[in-house]
Amino acid sequence: MDTSESGAITLLPPFSDRDRWTAEGWCPMERTLELIGTRSAMVLLREVFYGAGRFDDIVRRAGVTPAIAAKRLRQLVDGDLLERKPYRDPGQRTRNEYVLTDRGRQLFPIVVALMHFGDHLPREHEATIALSHANCGAELVPEVRCAAGHEVPLRQSAASIVRPTENPARGRR
Amino acid sequence: MDTSESGAITLLPPFSDRDRWTAEGWCPMERTLELIGTRSAMVLLREVFYGAGRFDDIVRRAGVTPAIAAKRLRQLVDGDLLERKPYRDPGQRTRNEYVLTDRGRQLFPIVVALMHFGDHLPREHEATIALSHANCGAELVPEVRCAAGHEVPLRQSAASIVRPTENPARGRR
Repeated sequence: MDTSESGAITLLPPFSDRDRWTAEGWCPMERTLELIGTRSAMVLLREVFYGAGRFDDIVRRAGVTPAIAAKRLRQLVDGDLLERKPYRDPGQRTRNEYVLTDRGRQLFPIVVALMHFGDHLPREHEATIALSHANCGAELVPEVRCAAGHEVPLRQSAASIVRPTENPARGRR
Repeated sequence: MDTSESGAITLLPPFSDRDRWTAEGWCPMERTLELIGTRSAMVLLREVFYGAGRFDDIVRRAGVTPAIAAKRLRQLVDGDLLERKPYRDPGQRTRNEYVLTDRGRQLFPIVVALMHFGDHLPREHEATIALSHANCGAELVPEVRCAAGHEVPLRQSAASIVRPTENPARGRR
């Protein structure tokens, strides 16, 4: 098997000029990782995806320390992934709970992809948590498609440098 | 808008018993994050996905220190995401380069989802790196579908506890 064919994303010109271009510092992946690139950020987000909202509940369920949780949740709010919403239990003072923003909900494919990958790793316990389609019960699968609807395997993927003015059809500013 | 409907994954029984079950410690996401849950692991993997193989090349392009890179690459090899393959330039001693294993290639949907999310974040530079379908040129999109082929939005997703003996149809051991 030719790994240059099957094992990597094809770099298109001018990105393919390996001495001239590297992804470091301006790759979209890095912008994502700046927001969610820690284990603690992801397990806190997982709990909000699972419906937890109150600080104590999120912390208990995520299994991180309150100090780390407070710091990460602040970063997730600053990054516009979570927002605080006031709530008030009868006879109590008003508190805030955390909910996903529109941007935070866009993390859903990442959550599914991380869960699906882990589902196929060796594990200590037999039982596991599975994501499914509530309507039909079938297991969730992360897929890579193109905007034209084709399923895209790794060997058919390509990476290129895009400047908005060069490709206005992609809908960029 | 009812956020309990649209903003979270529905927890099915017995997982929905929030006092009894938490995901901490046995969630598949955590198994994934144990392998790739650091920024440095992901940018190193990105470079291998972009076709870099030699240690010096990966390090230069990923923008991490050689010490961190050596540690992370060892972890990625131990986790069966990368493997070392010997190569030999004319007149040089045999060295190793890193290539994705079968398991490592399964990270492709995660890579695409991280890139796609970052592509929609505010950015400093106008230019960016885009992934596309080599065959037709259309942009890559991470999708969540179920095994029955339906597209699944967040509000139609559910999480449940699965024991292999309860659901042998899913093909578990």
